[in-house]
Amino acid sequence: MDMERASISKEATILYNGFIVTMDEQSRVYRDGAIVIARDQIVAIGQSSAILRQFAFAPSLLSENQIIDLHGQILLPGFINTHVHTSQQLARGIADDVDLMTWLHGRIWPYESNMTEEDSYISTLLCGIELIRSGVTCFAEAGGQHVSGMARAVELLGLRACLTQSTMDYGDGLPSSWAARTTADCIQSQKENYEKHHNTAEGRIRVWFGIRQIMNSTDRLLIETRDAARELKTGIHMHVAEIPYENQLVVDVRKANHGTVSYLEKIEFLQKNLLAAHTVWVNDTEISFLSRRGVKVSHCPAAAMRMLGFAPIREMLDAGIPVSLGTDGAPSNNRMSIVDEMYLASLINKGRNAYANKSTDPTALPAETILRMVTINGAKSVLWDNEIGSLEVGKKADIIVVNASSWTMVPVHDCISSLVYSMRTENVVSVMCNGLWIMKDKKILNVDEEEVISKAKQVSIEILKRAGIRIPNRMNYVN
Amino acid sequence: MDMERASISKEATILYNGFIVTMDEQSRVYRDGAIVIARDQIVAIGQSSAILRQFAFAPSLLSENQIIDLHGQILLPGFINTHVHTSQQLARGIADDVDLMTWLHGRIWPYESNMTEEDSYISTLLCGIELIRSGVTCFAEAGGQHVSGMARAVELLGLRACLTQSTMDYGDGLPSSWAARTTADCIQSQKENYEKHHNTAEGRIRVWFGIRQIMNSTDRLLIETRDAARELKTGIHMHVAEIPYENQLVVDVRKANHGTVSYLEKIEFLQKNLLAAHTVWVNDTEISFLSRRGVKVSHCPAAAMRMLGFAPIREMLDAGIPVSLGTDGAPSNNRMSIVDEMYLASLINKGRNAYANKSTDPTALPAETILRMVTINGAKSVLWDNEIGSLEVGKKADIIVVNASSWTMVPVHDCISSLVYSMRTENVVSVMCNGLWIMKDKKILNVDEEEVISKAKQVSIEILKRAGIRIPNRMNYVN
Repeated sequence: MDMERASISKEATILYNGFIVTMDEQSRVYRDGAIVIARDQIVAIGQSSAILRQFAFAPSLLSENQIIDLHGQILLPGFINTHVHTSQQLARGIADDVDLMTWLHGRIWPYESNMTEEDSYISTLLCGIELIRSGVTCFAEAGGQHVSGMARAVELLGLRACLTQSTMDYGDGLPSSWAARTTADCIQSQKENYEKHHNTAEGRIRVWFGIRQIMNSTDRLLIETRDAARELKTGIHMHVAEIPYENQLVVDVRKANHGTVSYLEKIEFLQKNLLAAHTVWVNDTEISFLSRRGVKVSHCPAAAMRMLGFAPIREMLDAGIPVSLGTDGAPSNNRMSIVDEMYLASLINKGRNAYANKSTDPTALPAETILRMVTINGAKSVLWDNEIGSLEVGKKADIIVVNASSWTMVPVHDCISSLVYSMRTENVVSVMCNGLWIMKDKKILNVDEEEVISKAKQVSIEILKRAGIRIPNRMNYVN
Repeated sequence: MDMERASISKEATILYNGFIVTMDEQSRVYRDGAIVIARDQIVAIGQSSAILRQFAFAPSLLSENQIIDLHGQILLPGFINTHVHTSQQLARGIADDVDLMTWLHGRIWPYESNMTEEDSYISTLLCGIELIRSGVTCFAEAGGQHVSGMARAVELLGLRACLTQSTMDYGDGLPSSWAARTTADCIQSQKENYEKHHNTAEGRIRVWFGIRQIMNSTDRLLIETRDAARELKTGIHMHVAEIPYENQLVVDVRKANHGTVSYLEKIEFLQKNLLAAHTVWVNDTEISFLSRRGVKVSHCPAAAMRMLGFAPIREMLDAGIPVSLGTDGAPSNNRMSIVDEMYLASLINKGRNAYANKSTDPTALPAETILRMVTINGAKSVLWDNEIGSLEVGKKADIIVVNASSWTMVPVHDCISSLVYSMRTENVVSVMCNGLWIMKDKKILNVDEEEVISKAKQVSIEILKRAGIRIPNRMNYVN
């Protein structure tokens, strides 16, 4: 146990009688543990008996509702979703079972380029509800258009986030409103977002720079983004090496040796502050570039299976790259559930070599590795591991409570693997971010969920109308 | 609309104002539909207005609670899970992240061979709750030891099932109690199960023959099983071509051309009544054998990724084989949710060729195909498509109600794909099997769920103790 008496005030909350999975460097687990939270921080963690004894000296300091019996429920650090397009939540289902070009040019770009700031706000609210219900306390936005809309939603929901504008200054097929943007516009707009929103909402919001992908970026955009992010000491979020075509184009046009990662190495774009999403088509040399430069990788299993292919996740982890998990956006996956993504990540990485080796590897990416990916590796990926990603004294109180006693998880013979393979979103009962409950006993606290759903239904139809997107019928509608 | 007035009695129930996905041969969908159920059958289906008009002639026939407004919720045929080890539910989590030999010889066989009839009953009750909550009304047992325990649970839960004993009369590493069984014992025991349980529980229970796998079967067991099943006009459930080692052994020892399927063709074992589970390692010739003989295939995506490899599902469907979906058992998958299996099936079959082609196929196994796999193809797989698998007049009333208005699915731009990619178990609100509700408004009706969970926790620990199974710790337990 580790606690400073001085830090205990009337605002403290004690959660005890919990099964605490700390995800600290020693992988400590308390079977009957307690945690003390004061303001936005964890001030003590240890065995319940020791923590409660420590507080016997001044029971009057705390009211009853500040001492919470967890009845054996599981406590974990809040999960971190390192690649999610919150602005695409209203586009769930608009591009299922279509080829990549239809997906991008026929559905996603028309949708995104027809969104207003208010649409982004509603979309992020809806997405945020799904994130919270999946145990997520922090996410990295993959890049939408209206950072102010996202920021309004994140502030209200009580989440923590690294927000990013999606920038493109080049390329075929861009919607006209985007094609008109200059490189300078792209950089300027992001600097303004930074000025306005970085470190707002009690420090829960950070603003990052965004590069959609290399095929839609001039070299000038890449270089200026690199320099601007370095100057402002913030991160860059970019889709990297998603499809072989992208690598080929970089080889053909930009004269790289292999693909995007090789080229980014060449122009000194690979840095500690880069979060590379997907990173599917990379060779061993490129893995060592990523490792040497301290680049972070977000693995999105569902989107990988659906659109991209198998990333060498095990090799990247072996090379010391902090690989984390992301859901990607709703039109790439449909479920914005990091809980389901854990299950998927383990399954597909066990099956990944089945084609080449004629055998899966059932021991690949074991449950404890997956749990690290969604907690401490997630924190490293969003450059925030000094404050989040594990339950330790001095870190922010980003905590989730999981009830493992329902039909979805019983029996629990191996708690850590049950969290990864059996848990579903419905097992997440309470979520705390920055010391405040944002979901309690399955009720979202800071927004009216029904109102958000109703509004989301309405505006999503309007966006599709404006964008001229029509979804064909799959069956024979009689009336 | 299609209805016989004569069949409407005081026992009828009308569900109206529903979005009905019939899964009939014309793939008909009613946006505002109604369905009339009398006793255990569907007696009418059509547009709400037409159905309600038809009933205006005698409103007194029906009480208020027999006319149910669905408020736009979705109606579907009950899902069919064609490969599930109900007896393994209590073993969830006992064999995660271990190699195949540890899995089988160190965990599963010791567990299963130490189960009592009562344990099977409890395990099937717990599994049944998960099946019902996933929208399953009918399942094919993959083979456990105590059919009477399974049958007691299925009768009580109100489900429909094809129950199977797992038989093995040969092979290395068998637990001693199993190794002592002769071929004659295996056949005799299954005939007794058939006599006792076939066509019981208002016809909801059928008894099939079971072969665990070819590596644990003598030729005599295969041949006598084939003949006994033919004589009793029932089905055979068998694990087929799971791993390359199995095929190799069949080639080496039994002198087959390629593997298990080739050998089963040679001994005339491939018949219309065979449900082949997994069927991963099959070549084109073998696919044509399966197709020509009318064999059914159960695809289990999670287990495939984890332990087996990619089955050529698209090729089997193209060859006209009714491929359905199964969850396999809890130690192979952890989630016994056919809803999650739909999501997985689509994802992994899109990604399947990524290694060979350097590209996924985002159009592979579209949502409508996946929905057929869990409904009408499931019914064909369990040899019951004359009575279940679609919502049609004259079929049994096996129906589920899905609420798509929650945060998990909103917005629904493409209803059929939303059911496959966005739906989660928590969207299934009510389940009817054989004309009776077995879950209503998320409450399981026929068993006390809390009691089953509590009993399951207790007996599962006792089985592990008897079997001498210890699960290593994955983290550093402080207390």
